[in-house]
Amino acid sequence: MKPTFELLKRDTTSGARLGKLTTPHGTIDTPVFMPVGTQGTVKGLVPERVKELGAKIILGNTYHLYLRPGHELIRDFGGLHRFMNWDGPILTDSGGFQIYSLATLRKLEEEGATFQSHIDGSTHFIGPEKCIEIQEAIGSDIMMCLDECLPYPATRDYAEKSLGMTTRWAKRCKDARKSDNQALFGISQGGMYGELRERGIAELTTIGFDGYALGGLSVGEPKELMWETVGKSAPLLPEEKPRYLMGVGTPEDIVECVYCGIDMFDCVMPTRNARNGMLFTNGRKIAIRNAHYRDDESPLDSECDCYTCKNYSRAYLRHLFIAREILAIVLNTIHNVRHFIRLMEKIREAIKNDDYENFRRDFKSKNSDVDTD
Amino acid sequence: MKPTFELLKRDTTSGARLGKLTTPHGTIDTPVFMPVGTQGTVKGLVPERVKELGAKIILGNTYHLYLRPGHELIRDFGGLHRFMNWDGPILTDSGGFQIYSLATLRKLEEEGATFQSHIDGSTHFIGPEKCIEIQEAIGSDIMMCLDECLPYPATRDYAEKSLGMTTRWAKRCKDARKSDNQALFGISQGGMYGELRERGIAELTTIGFDGYALGGLSVGEPKELMWETVGKSAPLLPEEKPRYLMGVGTPEDIVECVYCGIDMFDCVMPTRNARNGMLFTNGRKIAIRNAHYRDDESPLDSECDCYTCKNYSRAYLRHLFIAREILAIVLNTIHNVRHFIRLMEKIREAIKNDDYENFRRDFKSKNSDVDTD
Repeated sequence: MKPTFELLKRDTTSGARLGKLTTPHGTIDTPVFMPVGTQGTVKGLVPERVKELGAKIILGNTYHLYLRPGHELIRDFGGLHRFMNWDGPILTDSGGFQIYSLATLRKLEEEGATFQSHIDGSTHFIGPEKCIEIQEAIGSDIMMCLDECLPYPATRDYAEKSLGMTTRWAKRCKDARKSDNQALFGISQGGMYGELRERGIAELTTIGFDGYALGGLSVGEPKELMWETVGKSAPLLPEEKPRYLMGVGTPEDIVECVYCGIDMFDCVMPTRNARNGMLFTNGRKIAIRNAHYRDDESPLDSECDCYTCKNYSRAYLRHLFIAREILAIVLNTIHNVRHFIRLMEKIREAIKNDDYENFRRDFKSKNSDVDTD
Repeated sequence: MKPTFELLKRDTTSGARLGKLTTPHGTIDTPVFMPVGTQGTVKGLVPERVKELGAKIILGNTYHLYLRPGHELIRDFGGLHRFMNWDGPILTDSGGFQIYSLATLRKLEEEGATFQSHIDGSTHFIGPEKCIEIQEAIGSDIMMCLDECLPYPATRDYAEKSLGMTTRWAKRCKDARKSDNQALFGISQGGMYGELRERGIAELTTIGFDGYALGGLSVGEPKELMWETVGKSAPLLPEEKPRYLMGVGTPEDIVECVYCGIDMFDCVMPTRNARNGMLFTNGRKIAIRNAHYRDDESPLDSECDCYTCKNYSRAYLRHLFIAREILAIVLNTIHNVRHFIRLMEKIREAIKNDDYENFRRDFKSKNSDVDTD
């Protein structure tokens, strides 16, 4: 079966939407947050735990999996789901962002991207056709088109040229796909230039994809400019297709961009911050290494229902972190991922109750200072 | 309640024994292997997982917990069980071995040991009374006396002097204890000198403890000499009390020393080797990074019933290890700990069936080459 999307509801006072994304590996309520499982694992968690946290779909990284263990190996194992023991939906990115941010000596030409691996410096080429071949070998439920992730700032001239290539690559991706069971999403680029975003989206929708993503955001631009770009671009995307904001973001970003009509998010923030001891609670982030948690018997977040908050004190979490114990990463990751999943549950509930405008206002007033203590 | 030991059975053709150790936090069938939870966690595993693997008792390290997070803090939390969310039995070592092997600038005198922390170089003093105070604050089910862990080789003269002090420290430990709910074990030292072992054990049993340990073994001496020392010392220990061989060992060591009449073992080997990618299977150790596991679809050990072996391929475990994923440590630790626990299950079964002699012969023939591939 080919993944399908059903738009269930539009919020009465904002762009926020409720939807249902059906894939061969399960159904996903949107708006949804996708934990990142870069190298075939959500770092530190067994798949059963990821599921227990309420995650319905995870993201795999094409660039990483192509380099290691290699997409042919994954294909020989019957795909990533089986290889990593995760039977839920998987979305794979196209590798474009990693080629832009991780690989060295990258060279982007009309044919595709030549780059050196960040692991061993070996030289590789990925064009649109190869990008699809890799993602079909991985067997993800949702594939992304290869794109050039535009840096910020970029001149209008460069942004326009880049957009043209991204659009032509998108067309080639669509032509290259063979699988009927995997959705393919197009990616909007164009930097912060509204007119280019508009043109790119028009061209993408003419080609026609199963869903649409906004890419090239959260790459260093001011937060307000990101929100503004999303606010202008999201309404241009086809209403009956899922809308995915790539690599975003903070809880505040998510609340804001759901408001603009985004359905899908992914970000390394909950997992990466967990490893660094930065833990999300309602209204503030906690640096668990801080000395004033030394003898704090209270749970990390008394409102949280996760395994970590139900069973451990801040003092114990601090001890594990200071002692560099692996369990610190495990317990912190459990909490942070659950925090993001719970946020999405609250968001969906608010939209369902025609209350998203209030929810957003309330959230912003409590999270005006999302700073580290 | 004070922990008690019941000797259930002696093997008909060897020194092997079946027993039951009852503590305030649960009952333990012996011979038993205790996974090491140095800093208030079995590295990488949540306590529910440790329990699922069949571990009935874990070991905590007095030296580490005293330095970090500090025993007063643990006492304020109602003890280590509650602090770390493990409701099963805990044995704490005395810190003697860590002072010997980890701390710097240590100075052992009649009064006790002065040493510098391996963490920050701060100076500390632990004598027998302090050692008991710390373990009572931790609230372990079984405490160990402070001892001097004799290096190998040691002169007879030094070994004799050291033994005298270890015995006097043991007496002071017994005098210092206040808790009625915690067992206290004496530790036999004396190096590889049979006569000194004999004298020390006689003195310890005269003082009288709830159990007896053999210490100062597996500190660099040849394996055969260790087995020989255990073989001569174990029968000297009171039959009605549990016998614990500290810090030992390989599966082969365990099989051999159960044969000599040892009831309890602990070792970092399963957990530490897991982190290094050295995995135990029947008859051989596997270095999971080895290239010939790259596309190996088979489980790590087809005879193993652990979560890792039931759900993952060698190829996936190799991928995680090569990619330095945290999940590699988690999955490897699950398997290695389960491997040791299963070994103890088989050992108890063999003793129960009056078949330990055969079991041992069979094990030795299959494990004659416990080398890394």
